Formats: sequence, C-alpha cells, structure tokens
Amino acid sequence: MTGRFRPTTLNHMVQYRANKFDRVTAAISDPTRRAIMERLARGAANISDVAEPFSMSLTGFCKHVRVLERAGLVRRTRHGRNKTLELSPEPLHDVAQWLLRYEQFWNARLDRLEQFFVKHKEKSR
Amino acid sequence: MTGRFRPTTLNHMVQYRANKFDRVTAAISDPTRRAIMERLARGAANISDVAEPFSMSLTGFCKHVRVLERAGLVRRTRHGRNKTLELSPEPLHDVAQWLLRYEQFWNARLDRLEQFFVKHKEKSR
Repeated sequence: MTGRFRPTTLNHMVQYRANKFDRVTAAISDPTRRAIMERLARGAANISDVAEPFSMSLTGFCKHVRVLERAGLVRRTRHGRNKTLELSPEPLHDVAQWLLRYEQFWNARLDRLEQFFVKHKEKSR
Repeated sequence: MTGRFRPTTLNHMVQYRANKFDRVTAAISDPTRRAIMERLARGAANISDVAEPFSMSLTGFCKHVRVLERAGLVRRTRHGRNKTLELSPEPLHDVAQWLLRYEQFWNARLDRLEQFFVKHKEKSR
C-alpha cells in the first residue's frame, strides 16, 4: 500500500476530526433538517415561524433544531420573549472540501465517456 | 414568505429525492465508511484486503460496506473466488452541489471580515 493511507496510521486518521464531521453529515442526512437550513438561508427567523409549515409537533421540530445546533449549523438566540434561529453554514465547508476531493473521479469518467462518443462519431462518418 | 420555499410546497419538496440524499449523507457520516471510500479512491481492491487494516470483525466491516452499497457509493463484484470492492463516487455530486449553495454565506462572511481588517488597518495608520 502506498500514499497517505498506510494501514498503521489508519485508525489514528479515522479518529481525527471525526466527531465534528460525523455530526455535520448526520445532521444534513434528514430532509426536515435540510429544509430548516434552507428556510434560514433566507434569513434569521423566530423559531415558531420556522416551525409553522412543518407538519409535526413543536417538540419534534425542536429535536431537529437541537441536532443542527450540536452540529454547529444553527444558532439559537433569545431577544426578550422571542427565540430566534440563525443559519451558521461554516461547518459545511469541511464537508464540501472532502467531497470535492472525489470530483476528479467524476471528471475522469466524463472524459472517458466523451472520448468514447468522439471515437464513435468518427467511426460512423 | 417568498422565493422557492413557500410553506404549501414545503413538504412536497422535502420528499423529493430525499431518500437518495439521506442515504448518501448518512453513509458518509461514519469515519470507518469514509476511510473505506478513501482506500477505494486509490483503486478497486479485494474485500478482505480492504478490511484488513480496520480493527473490527469482518461481519462488522461488511455491514459498513452494505451501507455504502445502498447509498450507491461502492460496488461489489465477484471475479471467480474474489469479491472486489470499487468506488462509485457519482452520488457525492448532488451532495456537493447542495453544499456549494451555502458557499455564498461563507464568502459573504469572509468579505465582511476582510473589510473589517482593511478599515482597522487604515485607522491604525
């Protein structure tokens, strides 16, 4: 084995920053939580206003908000009687970076497909 | 409420493509599964060779592989007696696209920070 994934260092590397990344990716693996984030992307809002369009109890809704808070994706602040939710998208950056490392694979496949069609076209002339 | 997130269409939109996205993001929310993907990014490999550096039973390892298979991130093929695992990173594309929609927020914050430091520097001259 070569490269950065030698077996002896594997378990150590696996642990590195695992918790944060795990929490963020688990948080976005639920459609309700993604919809909350997309709502908050339009601006901070009162928690009950955000909850309103969702067909679930406020208790159920608040559980989703807590998962987002623990992942660092949402901030809850209190202004007098109001509880406001605000998006905090920074933790998504690391996930995006990790995903973009795999972009070379899509690109390589697309290149092979393109070559295939170019050759096919040349043959059929 | 304005824009693409009108309450009446919310639940419908939430359901749209939810399952696929959910499976992919849940699959990458585990450090062992990410390590399997990173190993396979170096090339297809025999399943027992991939399992070897992980300090877990083969049964436990295979459970992780199945989660990756169901998300469409890994393919298992049989060559005679050998079972080979191969990376299939295409499903990550949708997740990357979704994440990059939030890039504007990091950029906006970075711009504000830069402006703050530029002003601060001007003042301190």
